[in-house]
Amino acid sequence: MTAPDVNALLRQRYGASAPVLADPAILSSEALALLLRHRSVRSFADAPVTDEHVTAITAAAQSAASSSNNQSWSVVEVRDADRRARLVSEAGGSALIADAPVVLLFVADWARASDIAGWHGEPAEAAAYLESTLVGFVDAGIAAQSAVVAAEALGLGTVYLGSLRTRPEVSADEIGLPEGAAVAFGVAIGWPDPADTAGIKPRLPQRAVRSRERYRPIAREDVDAYERELAAYNATQGRAGSWIAQVVARVRDVRGLHGRENARAALERRGLPSR
Amino acid sequence: MTAPDVNALLRQRYGASAPVLADPAILSSEALALLLRHRSVRSFADAPVTDEHVTAITAAAQSAASSSNNQSWSVVEVRDADRRARLVSEAGGSALIADAPVVLLFVADWARASDIAGWHGEPAEAAAYLESTLVGFVDAGIAAQSAVVAAEALGLGTVYLGSLRTRPEVSADEIGLPEGAAVAFGVAIGWPDPADTAGIKPRLPQRAVRSRERYRPIAREDVDAYERELAAYNATQGRAGSWIAQVVARVRDVRGLHGRENARAALERRGLPSR
Repeated sequence: MTAPDVNALLRQRYGASAPVLADPAILSSEALALLLRHRSVRSFADAPVTDEHVTAITAAAQSAASSSNNQSWSVVEVRDADRRARLVSEAGGSALIADAPVVLLFVADWARASDIAGWHGEPAEAAAYLESTLVGFVDAGIAAQSAVVAAEALGLGTVYLGSLRTRPEVSADEIGLPEGAAVAFGVAIGWPDPADTAGIKPRLPQRAVRSRERYRPIAREDVDAYERELAAYNATQGRAGSWIAQVVARVRDVRGLHGRENARAALERRGLPSR
Repeated sequence: MTAPDVNALLRQRYGASAPVLADPAILSSEALALLLRHRSVRSFADAPVTDEHVTAITAAAQSAASSSNNQSWSVVEVRDADRRARLVSEAGGSALIADAPVVLLFVADWARASDIAGWHGEPAEAAAYLESTLVGFVDAGIAAQSAVVAAEALGLGTVYLGSLRTRPEVSADEIGLPEGAAVAFGVAIGWPDPADTAGIKPRLPQRAVRSRERYRPIAREDVDAYERELAAYNATQGRAGSWIAQVVARVRDVRGLHGRENARAALERRGLPSR
């Protein structure tokens, strides 16, 4: 096996602002290279994802850290084509859900702890607070990212699907979630289509997201430099569009939320009022 | 290099309920084994974590997926001993923060997008909604987990620190966060103390967290089996205590939140009202 080229991966990720590393232990890490090589896959080949794959991926997810070992997330593995189609047509999910052989729905889950408390004659009042909603969603994110890295380690491709938060009650009903549980997001998994040319998407310069000791607001020149790096990458993918315009559209007003401005009310109806 | 023993790692993670895998591609994956081998490290050796380490770890974090490529998180690297001590004494952080050479504070960050919108004469109204709070926290979780895996790939140890949510305004002030940004959690990083005997902590049986097509509520016998597995593991670590009792105490009433019942009000004062 040839050594990974970590510095080449950093150049792809950061363009002109890429750091150059020299530590041989860092430069020779295959696992680090796997992480740096991440790309979202949006086109899947027609090859099976086996039960053993999902078992290994779920074991990686469960091996990740969990707040106070509460394990307040679950995963529902959806393969049924009709169910995947309904998650697109009824629940507002991305069309990718219909294309991928397997979609893992990561669930922020306080229903399990509530069941356990109920068996012991206790209520579950603390599930009602924003802190619990956040813990459920963050722990789902931590677990899912280990699932994604495991999938990529096995040669599979993945894409996160936040679109399943658009109608939380519909997606919850589709997979029979109890009160106190809600879909945080999905992860579609499959073998990457060999014809898919998606590459390593540039990110903001590291100095724009990392600061030392005290937070440093982003510099306008770093944003402008990133705008150029991403435009150059997008051109190789036959895409146009401005990152700055996209960020402004996301944050400017409620239209950037695409219906998800109702998240709080919808989660409350699911038993997660985020008080 | 000898092949990793994935099935042995699964036995450590799941005990009697461990799945047994046969796919050679899965059994030979070093990266999968790295993920399965995860343990939190709470005792650090006196050896330096270099700037190149943090650069590589942050690059891995940035390489993870981000909702709509908004990159709505930041990381503040805290090394200063006085600041770490204050994060313990003033911000309610775990004592581990004072012991580790580096603590990365992962920030749910809508301040950056708000700055960008402001430069273009636009408001940032959508940052006020729960959907945005959740995206910031989930993206921080996804990024942080790639940071943790990268650290472990380099031989470093980590532990997540949710305790920094106890007094969000104090931790935000300590690192100078602007409005629209809040500490989601910390990750302490250092070289594992060779004398630390912490091992692979058992998790719930996979069938208790993973279901197919439709959510399956947890079975009481699976909880009881896990209670026994975890007690046996804890005994090897010289610890007592019941997982069931811990879960019930976490969820029963507001006391399980240890002050974090004020998260919503505190985040609102930080410019993240989670409407």
